[in-house]
Parts: sequence; C-alpha cells; structure tokens
Amino acid sequence: MIGSIAAILTTFAFLPQVVRVVKTKDTESIALGMYVMQVIGIALWLAHGFHIGDLPLILANSVSFLLSGIILIYKLKYK
Amino acid sequence: MIGSIAAILTTFAFLPQVVRVVKTKDTESIALGMYVMQVIGIALWLAHGFHIGDLPLILANSVSFLLSGIILIYKLKYK
Repeated sequence: MIGSIAAILTTFAFLPQVVRVVKTKDTESIALGMYVMQVIGIALWLAHGFHIGDLPLILANSVSFLLSGIILIYKLKYK
Repeated sequence: MIGSIAAILTTFAFLPQVVRVVKTKDTESIALGMYVMQVIGIALWLAHGFHIGDLPLILANSVSFLLSGIILIYKLKYK
C-alpha cells in the first residue's frame, strides 16, 4: 500500500515540471544531465520490467519515460 | 544487471541538478510541485524498503531522498 502510493507519487512527480516547461518554454535552471540520465535510466527500468514481465514496473516507467522525455525534448529545444 | 544500471542512473540523475542549483542558486524554471512529490514519494519508498527489509531499495532511496531534498530546500529558499 505504502509502496503503491510511493510509486504513484514518484511517477507523476514529473507532471508539474512538464506543465511548467510546456507553458513557459523556460528550461534555464533545469540540468540537462539530469534528464539525459533519467530518460536512459527509465528506458532501462522499462526493459527490465519487460524482461521479468512485471506489469506495475512497465506501467509506472512508461508514464515516467513519457513525462521525463517531454522535459528532455524541451530542454534540448529551448536552451 | 540492466535493473542495477537503471537503478544507479535514476538514483544519481538528481546529482547534476543538485550541482547546478548549489552553484547558481537559480531555481526559477524548476517546478516546486515536482520536488514536493518526489521527496514525499521517495520517503514512502524508503518506508516501504524498511518494511520489506530490502537493502537495495533502502540504499537507492536514501541517496535520492538526500539529493532531491537538497533541490527542494534550494527551491524553497531561492524562489
């Protein structure tokens, strides 16, 4: 139960940041390295999830991958 | 193996952002809501880790809690 709430919070934590960069196109104080590491790391979590066939891992990391991917794209586009 | 690399990447992804905010004190484009959710979510992951006695979960989330906590403190201090 605590684990599920934890998973939901850390998965959707990227959402306020996505909303902010999409609205403002301001990514000045965001570290590029953070989102490069996040996107690669989350892609590997996803691969791991498929490998062990774990649905919660696949679902949570699909959402995180999408959200942090959007932030990375905005960071690369609007430096 | 893929899971371990994934864990290391997503855990230490916060580090470039910590270095950036500590150096520049610039947190303008960082969403407060993201780090509020991260810090609470990671604290719950940590609680879950202690509950099920899983050392990797405890170690990874201790590091993430510290790093995202620093970003949250800087965001609150230098708006």
